[in-house]
Amino acid sequence: MKYDRILLEHGGGGLLSNELISDCFLPLFKNKYLEKLEDGAVFEVAGSKLCFSTDSYVVQPIFFPGGNIGSLAVHGTVNDLAMCGGKPLYLSAGFIIEEGFAMKDLQIIISSMAEAALKAGVSIVTGDTKVVSKGSADGIFINTSGIGQISYNSPIGVSCIKPGDLIIVNGCIGDHGAAILSVRENMGINEGMISDSAPLNGLVEKILKACPEIHCMRDATRGGLGAILAEISQQSGLTFSIEESKIPVKEEVRGICEILGMDVLFLANEGKFALFCPESYASIVLDIMRSHEYGQDAAIIGKVSESSGKARLIMRTIIGGSRELDLPTGELVPRIC
Amino acid sequence: MKYDRILLEHGGGGLLSNELISDCFLPLFKNKYLEKLEDGAVFEVAGSKLCFSTDSYVVQPIFFPGGNIGSLAVHGTVNDLAMCGGKPLYLSAGFIIEEGFAMKDLQIIISSMAEAALKAGVSIVTGDTKVVSKGSADGIFINTSGIGQISYNSPIGVSCIKPGDLIIVNGCIGDHGAAILSVRENMGINEGMISDSAPLNGLVEKILKACPEIHCMRDATRGGLGAILAEISQQSGLTFSIEESKIPVKEEVRGICEILGMDVLFLANEGKFALFCPESYASIVLDIMRSHEYGQDAAIIGKVSESSGKARLIMRTIIGGSRELDLPTGELVPRIC
Repeated sequence: MKYDRILLEHGGGGLLSNELISDCFLPLFKNKYLEKLEDGAVFEVAGSKLCFSTDSYVVQPIFFPGGNIGSLAVHGTVNDLAMCGGKPLYLSAGFIIEEGFAMKDLQIIISSMAEAALKAGVSIVTGDTKVVSKGSADGIFINTSGIGQISYNSPIGVSCIKPGDLIIVNGCIGDHGAAILSVRENMGINEGMISDSAPLNGLVEKILKACPEIHCMRDATRGGLGAILAEISQQSGLTFSIEESKIPVKEEVRGICEILGMDVLFLANEGKFALFCPESYASIVLDIMRSHEYGQDAAIIGKVSESSGKARLIMRTIIGGSRELDLPTGELVPRIC
Repeated sequence: MKYDRILLEHGGGGLLSNELISDCFLPLFKNKYLEKLEDGAVFEVAGSKLCFSTDSYVVQPIFFPGGNIGSLAVHGTVNDLAMCGGKPLYLSAGFIIEEGFAMKDLQIIISSMAEAALKAGVSIVTGDTKVVSKGSADGIFINTSGIGQISYNSPIGVSCIKPGDLIIVNGCIGDHGAAILSVRENMGINEGMISDSAPLNGLVEKILKACPEIHCMRDATRGGLGAILAEISQQSGLTFSIEESKIPVKEEVRGICEILGMDVLFLANEGKFALFCPESYASIVLDIMRSHEYGQDAAIIGKVSESSGKARLIMRTIIGGSRELDLPTGELVPRIC
């Protein structure tokens, strides 16, 4: 390992996160499921194809415009299962709570989880609660894991992406990151600065029903759209060309990015995903997204092509130039989810 | 809720843990799976019976005689699935790591997880890593969730326990708690003071194969054998009579309990479980346990009977008296798992 100690960046979804996974976890946990590096693992049990995913949530502040750590924990795992092409069925919830945490806040968080689960059509069926002494954790951390059932016939994943595929996002990017940052920086709550935290399984189900050939889906959480596209490009060995002018971004979010010197491409989302499909299905996907509450600003933002040499993620900028994007290495936003 | 703030005891596996679950989680997450309050949820997906369980591990110290937080996290969830009568198949691993944590320690922990998974015959197929800033967590917390497949024909659970059932434990109790306490109290490492952390699925599989009628199994983790028996007695509405002289306890563990003023019945285990079965199968269960590496000191410790009125857990003490045991309410050992 390059580093003697864990840095914040090892959990940021950028280059160091990927290095930790590839240098530490993969060689030791070695198995074909984990090695795919998708949002969840896909396997068969007694002839049924299932998906399984986990995420721990450490977001700070725990209450933010558009949600709280509880609803986020449900949406995040529901979305990871949806990205595998699965119908999320059952969730677990593991709580680590700091001694002295307000019971009232816990009840609000649990209520939000219950509400989010109901809306997403999943049940929280098993759980665990640990309490650590004052100072040994920061408020509350929640892990959710989930099981989904896959009935889609075609495989979905990075290895299914083909040259010629179009890249579609289901709406404006950076909302979650902007909402968290606006609270942290005491910038006042602004109508546009609301987390996009939402369950995507309903939308994905509609798309999979209508389109027999969706190649890959990935939700753009930690590290934002830029990080997941750079990662998928590297994993697939293909080059992605995206157009900055086509990427939907809210004015308010663009504004906060300018003030804070952040790149919206690397700002977290909790209800946005990139979808890869053949050109022939792109307009159906777009229609379905735009007629759904979680896809109204959907747009085709780019295209996949063969790589001559190294796989690259290239963005044609608004001013007409061309910029190569890579996995973020610098300072990321900690505890964004 | 009786309390405004979360207390350490809300995570201790005793009375307050149970109240938190019944007053806060159950009414909001309301579903038939969670309400069973077993070690995991059991449900069917496309005709196959699966079990699903989760646990977060916050043990302190993270390295202890007989294991570390990594092996413990694998054994704990493997055992919860085994207690449901399931064959553990796939595990998830979610890490929350404090900034500055030594990479070398992380690698040792991951290695132990990999080794424990291999020995238990499960694969760690999906994961997540979050890093929080220095001071926002205490070293490392690990969540594992797991999926198992149930092929046992009879239902297993608290509601299956019948009057006349015998209660069997697979060996000496209190080892894990004693090992953790001996390190915390700087009592020096002693041969007998080694955690019993172990995967129980192999042993359980052998028992289920040989006995068509196992009524209930529960691993005696947080809160120890006393807490799980008190809990199951209350849940089942049946009275359990146990004999102190039959409960296997190592001399060294008894010694540390005397020094620290602890009751071994309420000391945590990570490789011990209570099994309920009809008298006719007890000797087969005992034989299988005693010929297995994780059951050599197995013993029949008590019997189930109808309750006249309130369900009770009654222990005939070594000196011939009778003591009623209840869910622990006082000070528990925090961060024991």
